[in-house]
Amino acid sequence: MRTIKLTIAYDGTDFNGWQSQPKGRTIQQTLEGALSRIHDRDISVVAAGRTDAGVHATGQVAAFRSDRDSIPIDRFAHAINSLLPLDVRVLRAEVVRDDFHARFDATCRTYEYHVLPAEHLHPTRRRYTWRVHFHPNIARLNQMCLAVIGEHDFASFAGTGGDTSTTIRRVYQASWRAERDELIFHIAASGFLWRMVRSLVGTMIGFERDRTALEQFEVVRDACNREAAGESAPARGLYLCRVEYPSEYGATEGDREGVGDGGGTTG
Amino acid sequence: MRTIKLTIAYDGTDFNGWQSQPKGRTIQQTLEGALSRIHDRDISVVAAGRTDAGVHATGQVAAFRSDRDSIPIDRFAHAINSLLPLDVRVLRAEVVRDDFHARFDATCRTYEYHVLPAEHLHPTRRRYTWRVHFHPNIARLNQMCLAVIGEHDFASFAGTGGDTSTTIRRVYQASWRAERDELIFHIAASGFLWRMVRSLVGTMIGFERDRTALEQFEVVRDACNREAAGESAPARGLYLCRVEYPSEYGATEGDREGVGDGGGTTG
Repeated sequence: MRTIKLTIAYDGTDFNGWQSQPKGRTIQQTLEGALSRIHDRDISVVAAGRTDAGVHATGQVAAFRSDRDSIPIDRFAHAINSLLPLDVRVLRAEVVRDDFHARFDATCRTYEYHVLPAEHLHPTRRRYTWRVHFHPNIARLNQMCLAVIGEHDFASFAGTGGDTSTTIRRVYQASWRAERDELIFHIAASGFLWRMVRSLVGTMIGFERDRTALEQFEVVRDACNREAAGESAPARGLYLCRVEYPSEYGATEGDREGVGDGGGTTG
Repeated sequence: MRTIKLTIAYDGTDFNGWQSQPKGRTIQQTLEGALSRIHDRDISVVAAGRTDAGVHATGQVAAFRSDRDSIPIDRFAHAINSLLPLDVRVLRAEVVRDDFHARFDATCRTYEYHVLPAEHLHPTRRRYTWRVHFHPNIARLNQMCLAVIGEHDFASFAGTGGDTSTTIRRVYQASWRAERDELIFHIAASGFLWRMVRSLVGTMIGFERDRTALEQFEVVRDACNREAAGESAPARGLYLCRVEYPSEYGATEGDREGVGDGGGTTG
């Protein structure tokens, strides 16, 4: 019996989010279906983050208990992928400590958000970026990030419906960069409130669109009230890129599969 | 009555290529359908290049004759886009000389081909790149490009079924660059044989996979025989990026719409 940690990528476009539910196709159900076939019994996975409908991942993490000790760990990713549809892939499978918990043990999560300033939609990127009709100033966006970095109460940026007891989170990194013709927001934190990244992006881009004074951004944050912030940016621009864990859970080098291929790291 | 030149982008994934045909959805039929609604009569368009099923475009060009002189040219792109599905967009509309022919008057066409070296498929890029299981050496790929640049008989790289009288073409530029985790092939030529870009890419990547001696690349080219070359790379990695015309056809600045947004240029 082993606990196996999977690093997973998916195109969220045609999924109704991560979490299993009665209606619609979900990533959790799709993955559990493949794992259940391999194990000849029902397998449940626990994910680091339950992404919403339309959100993508390049480094989601999910773990499960496996009694298929006969399958070498370096064959696991290929075995699962052979049973998955093309819009979800396992990038890496590793054996971890038995008490590993993908959600509660994560110490840092990294998201990216892709904004495309363009007059017309670009068809090949319509599922993967938020197109805006003007050119936001990246220096001003990065100024706003200074009010995001650090430990703050992010209640202004929390979607209603979240289930956490506190709205305080610690943000380690937050910045915007230009890449090709896109603007990419990168944020790493101990954890995120529901819709926090999309609320932050929607508010920052709204500040740029309306040419709101930058000092107001801290005012919005300190209001601790969702009404103070702007609308959420759409799901399609958001990617869960990486989840990190303390090294004591980590896989040894020999357990790794596909190193250098995916976006995930282990602590 | 005006002749209008459109610069068009599309996601080729869900199209059965450019050209109208009895079966399947095509870009030509989709675009002509929108134009015919605007004009209240059947409109036919002529494209610079009839891309195959699955091939994308960021700067395809198509032209047609319009008697809707009441629509300002700078509103045309928005008017057409309001009637098009999201996987095809008009980026720019310009008035050109009445005798403009999108195919025969083009002096240079530019394509790009995206290769993704990765062990596992990346779900968000499965429609837009060719994934290969090894890491091609970009210096060696660029060495092979030296045998592509210039005027040559490209019969070895011509798909059977093409309808041209000569297999000689002049290639102005051919090079590979690394961008993010992809390798991108860029090629500009007076014209292309059917499947020429995909045959060149398939052969070059095959040379890398099999570690074939670089000198053999010229041997393949000079064989003037399709059997000598490698298999064609898949359609999904190919983009028609730009089509250029002599300046005498060109739109004046005042006629342009959406400058700076798309990938097209006018001569």
